[in-house]
Amino acid sequence: MTFLTHLECSETGEQLPADQDQHLSGAGFPLLARYDYAAIRSRVPRRDLTGRRTDLWRFAELLPSDNPVTLGEGWTPLLRLDRIGAELGLRDLLVKDEGFNPTGTFKARGAAVGVARARDLGVTNIAMPTAGNAGGAWAAYCANAGVGFRVIMPADAPVINMAEARVYGSDAAYVDGLISDAGRIIGAESAKHGWYDASTLKEPYRIEGKKTMGLEIVEQLGWELPDVIFYPAGGGVGLIGIWKALDELEEIGWIGSDRPRLVAVQADGCAPLVRAWNERAEESRFWDGADTIASGLRVPKPLGDRLVLRALRETDGTAISVSDRSIREAVSELAQREGLFVCPEGASMLPALRALRDGDWIKEGEQVVLLNTGTGLKYPELVSLDGVETLPHP
Amino acid sequence: MTFLTHLECSETGEQLPADQDQHLSGAGFPLLARYDYAAIRSRVPRRDLTGRRTDLWRFAELLPSDNPVTLGEGWTPLLRLDRIGAELGLRDLLVKDEGFNPTGTFKARGAAVGVARARDLGVTNIAMPTAGNAGGAWAAYCANAGVGFRVIMPADAPVINMAEARVYGSDAAYVDGLISDAGRIIGAESAKHGWYDASTLKEPYRIEGKKTMGLEIVEQLGWELPDVIFYPAGGGVGLIGIWKALDELEEIGWIGSDRPRLVAVQADGCAPLVRAWNERAEESRFWDGADTIASGLRVPKPLGDRLVLRALRETDGTAISVSDRSIREAVSELAQREGLFVCPEGASMLPALRALRDGDWIKEGEQVVLLNTGTGLKYPELVSLDGVETLPHP
Repeated sequence: MTFLTHLECSETGEQLPADQDQHLSGAGFPLLARYDYAAIRSRVPRRDLTGRRTDLWRFAELLPSDNPVTLGEGWTPLLRLDRIGAELGLRDLLVKDEGFNPTGTFKARGAAVGVARARDLGVTNIAMPTAGNAGGAWAAYCANAGVGFRVIMPADAPVINMAEARVYGSDAAYVDGLISDAGRIIGAESAKHGWYDASTLKEPYRIEGKKTMGLEIVEQLGWELPDVIFYPAGGGVGLIGIWKALDELEEIGWIGSDRPRLVAVQADGCAPLVRAWNERAEESRFWDGADTIASGLRVPKPLGDRLVLRALRETDGTAISVSDRSIREAVSELAQREGLFVCPEGASMLPALRALRDGDWIKEGEQVVLLNTGTGLKYPELVSLDGVETLPHP
Repeated sequence: MTFLTHLECSETGEQLPADQDQHLSGAGFPLLARYDYAAIRSRVPRRDLTGRRTDLWRFAELLPSDNPVTLGEGWTPLLRLDRIGAELGLRDLLVKDEGFNPTGTFKARGAAVGVARARDLGVTNIAMPTAGNAGGAWAAYCANAGVGFRVIMPADAPVINMAEARVYGSDAAYVDGLISDAGRIIGAESAKHGWYDASTLKEPYRIEGKKTMGLEIVEQLGWELPDVIFYPAGGGVGLIGIWKALDELEEIGWIGSDRPRLVAVQADGCAPLVRAWNERAEESRFWDGADTIASGLRVPKPLGDRLVLRALRETDGTAISVSDRSIREAVSELAQREGLFVCPEGASMLPALRALRDGDWIKEGEQVVLLNTGTGLKYPELVSLDGVETLPHP
């Protein structure tokens, strides 16, 4: 049963009721969901989780809806990278593999919880701009929930994502422009038709789904915290979610005050958070000419930038960017040495880890978790088929 | 800990030792792994499973290896199809969704257990012909286990499967011919180089991985049996595996003698098992000119045909074929009404269910499980992008 109490502006602390359709705070910042942590602490010990359903809804007390929309999301495996971990002298090198979600990416978590909560609030039509994978995920959950879905993506979005939107019966279109252009049209259409605009961090519940990655990592490690968590930060919602999840676990008494160092990884061709981190700024500046093969990292000015930077500061974390070339090499290395075919965003973790281990920011014997946000099956174009032999008919 | 004792010919009962590399029996039939069921029965109550790892290796006693090769396979969700189930007057309509496996299909189960057992036996090189998905799965597990992998697929195999084989570093080639031609070359190459030929049912452990689908369905239903299980039968190994799993669960005392009726579903364009079933034959005949969009069902003469037909007879099941057109329609319907994007083989279950419900072979109020063998993300070509609008730059 949910213990949701209210929504709170992430910058000003302004409180808003959670039982109405809310988007940004009065001051224009993202809203965060708050719960009755004291009640959970006194009534629900963590051992209560044993034997619960093996999807993200097992964390019912810390989720905003009692009416799950579910396609089997969450409770993804924490896989060991033994060869690479040994080479780097780590105690454990683990991958939280989000490719196991419905629609093949971590976007399913935000969609499941976001759509469930929107339906609770009486929403019948959701609209969203997307670079790709979020659109596929929300299309699936809207279909399951019987909610209408309008989605607009840039004309250069991956074909697989438009195929997802179409197969789930969404009202889908391309725009001749960037995701920011798609966002402008969605904003106007939503205002006109009374649709629920579910753009990143413009509604407060997507992050509640994403935070379950943090809850799961801790439970899967036996309520111990890893030393470091690497996260590929485009919009950065998952990283904010993991940080929020850890604070909530402490508030309800399930963990102590230790924290893993959080690392935000970006691409050299679009690194507004890394630049802001290096400048010790509290906010990022728009990145001109964003360009990387990791389309999920092509976010020139994340709306959640202040929260990401705060999470890095408060956990003694850092931010680092890597080249597209190193991302391509990491896709091959993870597949050939460990048997994992990951998305380019997930692959970016490996060169970032190597760089920080080389600089001894990561110490020998540490336990490190990499967040792979999706399956490589959605990116077959990353693999060259040049030189495949065709044998004659025997 | 494994309780594996020996291998047994599925037709003659001939026993062979399990601690050596074995393929077909002396009489040329598939071998089945046998365990010390009495020992499991006396030592392991089913409640011991509570709290075990949430992958297929939780069923350790009934698996042939104590050294898992794991990428997070198994323990896939059993999802509800509430809209379609209500329309058909069923108590529960459930989908066991195998798209949640590594490499996106149920083939991961056979590969995980098959590669683990081969490694136990000292195998360093595995070879296999494949229509597609099995090759992708075995490539991943061989990479993880550090075992060499040679794979040959017909030149019309899906591009995504060759991409998988390549990214995992396999020695992969096309052949100008059918999967049977690929099999002939693999047989010759394996004999010449001493490779382990892992063709379907030519080694006895792939089915041990597949049978965990049956173990999971029963455990996920609280050790109750559904009324009917639908299975898309190409080679039919999964169906044989489910049937074997249920017999083993009875032998160890975890369930009684009731059985779900098993239904083998094929495509109209390649239905050797349906034809044999209708002719009350014990074996199938080669299907000339096999042709269907469901490439996993394009198996003209399954090596396990006698076992599939026996499983259907012993469970009062049946066999039925459906049209490619109905498969395409079912892909759309499952996506739009339930939020599931399934592979064509999985989609074939829905028209088969409708036909058997119309004929009252399935009764009102029954509980039915459909087996979806893989994710639709590997089949984007099933979705038309015709007529997608491109909006002008705002």
